[in-house]
Amino acid sequence: MEVKVPTLLIDEEKCRQNISKMKAKCRDGHAHLRPHFKTHLSADIAHWYSDQGIHCCTVSSVGMAAYFASHGWHDITIAFPYNLLEHEAINQLAGKIQLNILIESEESLSHAQIHLTNPVGVFVKIDVGYHRTGMNPADPQALEKLIGAINGPLSFRGFLAHAGHTYGTQQAAEIKQINDRAKEILAPLQKTFGGILSYGDTPSCSSAEDLSVYDELRPGNFVFYDWMQHEIGACNVHEIAVCMACPIVALHPSRQEVVIYGGAVHLSKDFVSNEGRRCYGKAVRLTKKGWETDSIGHVDRISQEHGILKVTDEVLRTLAVGQLIGVIPVHSCLTAACQGHYLSTNGQYIQKYNPA
Amino acid sequence: MEVKVPTLLIDEEKCRQNISKMKAKCRDGHAHLRPHFKTHLSADIAHWYSDQGIHCCTVSSVGMAAYFASHGWHDITIAFPYNLLEHEAINQLAGKIQLNILIESEESLSHAQIHLTNPVGVFVKIDVGYHRTGMNPADPQALEKLIGAINGPLSFRGFLAHAGHTYGTQQAAEIKQINDRAKEILAPLQKTFGGILSYGDTPSCSSAEDLSVYDELRPGNFVFYDWMQHEIGACNVHEIAVCMACPIVALHPSRQEVVIYGGAVHLSKDFVSNEGRRCYGKAVRLTKKGWETDSIGHVDRISQEHGILKVTDEVLRTLAVGQLIGVIPVHSCLTAACQGHYLSTNGQYIQKYNPA
Repeated sequence: MEVKVPTLLIDEEKCRQNISKMKAKCRDGHAHLRPHFKTHLSADIAHWYSDQGIHCCTVSSVGMAAYFASHGWHDITIAFPYNLLEHEAINQLAGKIQLNILIESEESLSHAQIHLTNPVGVFVKIDVGYHRTGMNPADPQALEKLIGAINGPLSFRGFLAHAGHTYGTQQAAEIKQINDRAKEILAPLQKTFGGILSYGDTPSCSSAEDLSVYDELRPGNFVFYDWMQHEIGACNVHEIAVCMACPIVALHPSRQEVVIYGGAVHLSKDFVSNEGRRCYGKAVRLTKKGWETDSIGHVDRISQEHGILKVTDEVLRTLAVGQLIGVIPVHSCLTAACQGHYLSTNGQYIQKYNPA
Repeated sequence: MEVKVPTLLIDEEKCRQNISKMKAKCRDGHAHLRPHFKTHLSADIAHWYSDQGIHCCTVSSVGMAAYFASHGWHDITIAFPYNLLEHEAINQLAGKIQLNILIESEESLSHAQIHLTNPVGVFVKIDVGYHRTGMNPADPQALEKLIGAINGPLSFRGFLAHAGHTYGTQQAAEIKQINDRAKEILAPLQKTFGGILSYGDTPSCSSAEDLSVYDELRPGNFVFYDWMQHEIGACNVHEIAVCMACPIVALHPSRQEVVIYGGAVHLSKDFVSNEGRRCYGKAVRLTKKGWETDSIGHVDRISQEHGILKVTDEVLRTLAVGQLIGVIPVHSCLTAACQGHYLSTNGQYIQKYNPA
């Protein structure tokens, strides 16, 4: 691997293991895995799923759906509220592949009914407590009216929910509580209206014991994991499959700091808080085949292109300008989205989707 | 303008005025303007500077320097610590244009002395209190040793400083204090060692009264400005020249929220804090030729593709799914870096640099 600028390294073997473990978990719960591809955004990485017999996926934009469709993915759910302004691209795509969209209001549905002429599956988005999007499950009349109005080329597929509030939890017990509540909300809806239940964020799917109520699970982050997932308890450090290789450009022993080429445009500005300090990534040593899992410091501050690592005197003495150091991202989805491409730890170039 | 997905709108007239005002400010202080192009990253926008007689610039990466060099910019300073690993690309570029690099350690300098064979200007980076990078100005012996060792194809150009701590200020008085301290540090260095003094972040250059001690100023953000600069007091709302056009995809009147297509991958995750709440952008109404300057809400939460606006009931009643709404970015440099291209308010496509 010849790395000269900040480059996101991907450990293919760890990714394949993460996919295999999640697939087994879904199979045990008799749920179908429809992985979210917004984390890796890569047609090359998508092959690692199809190699394990997974042939459907979830995305978060129409552009992303078109990219994966052009790379042989023919069963895609766009898990983002139907964007009226993109109806032409949606309709075109629905003429080529099995496409599912998300609806959460009468206005959106009636627009879709008028403008989409090719067969499209409709999931009704339900708010299970995250309060970002979705219909209120406590209003069955509104749900009945909406579902009753789905016809023509549109067909009701079921209910979809995303418990994004699991990302803010500190421990498995909290995740369980969120999932128990989601089950209480969703199971009766299926009983009344039919359709399938689609659920799943990475913390829930990684930690929860029993997700057997669901027909389909849509975690995405699990393929890479990251420091935030580790802090939540959704993964261990050995499962984290991404690491940013960053050149060291300056050492400041007087304040125990290392300046790396690797900033907000490479890592994103997502952070976790530790005892009142922000952490924008965990520093690790790179090896010939990847990186060590023991952390040797953290990214304490970040600007557009610079990262400032805090390390001990002992660690600092082993570092030099011109060396590469690894940074485990806090939030791999956002870090991955910042890249033009990735590099596998085997030295392979990995292509990805980049909006024009 | 036909906008269907989150698109960063650029008001060319405002940008040109911002450039003109900053140029006049520099001229009044008898300083040369070497604008930082990391904010706009665009060869098209670069023309708006050359139209006003500005033919040199600052960038923050070697790739960015190569991009602007290929678009006719032949006098470029890379205001980022010399990255040893990119010496070949730096040397190649130095064979084609007047290139300046930043040095802040003996290790970096001796590497550059060995590996760079084409003429390169060297700025010595000085830490004026931001404590991100730079040499300690209180150690004249180290400075003397370093400057004395610059020879061969490398030539000493002067001292460069970036008072990035102005971004954390709340008022003009604090910015003045930082600038006064920087002057106390830098002026004596020039007296002792010669060379030019290069300074300048946007808050300092926009607000400070007297920057006449400097030979060169390098602000970048001022071409666009943003909500953070407005909060610092570096600009007024009429000077902000960028706004993200975002499709509305859902309304939630019960919690006074509007869901927009426009998330962390479009706006970045930078925020300002207001009374304990985060603000990831200010909502404004779009007009035929741009946007209104009165804010009608703010981006309260953000995820990968979603933004959640908080608005009043009154505002919410005027909005509908499928409409576009504007978001003034908190930090335009990071927002701009997220885009594949921009759209001018005259409907012109604006190209930009995107790392491969």
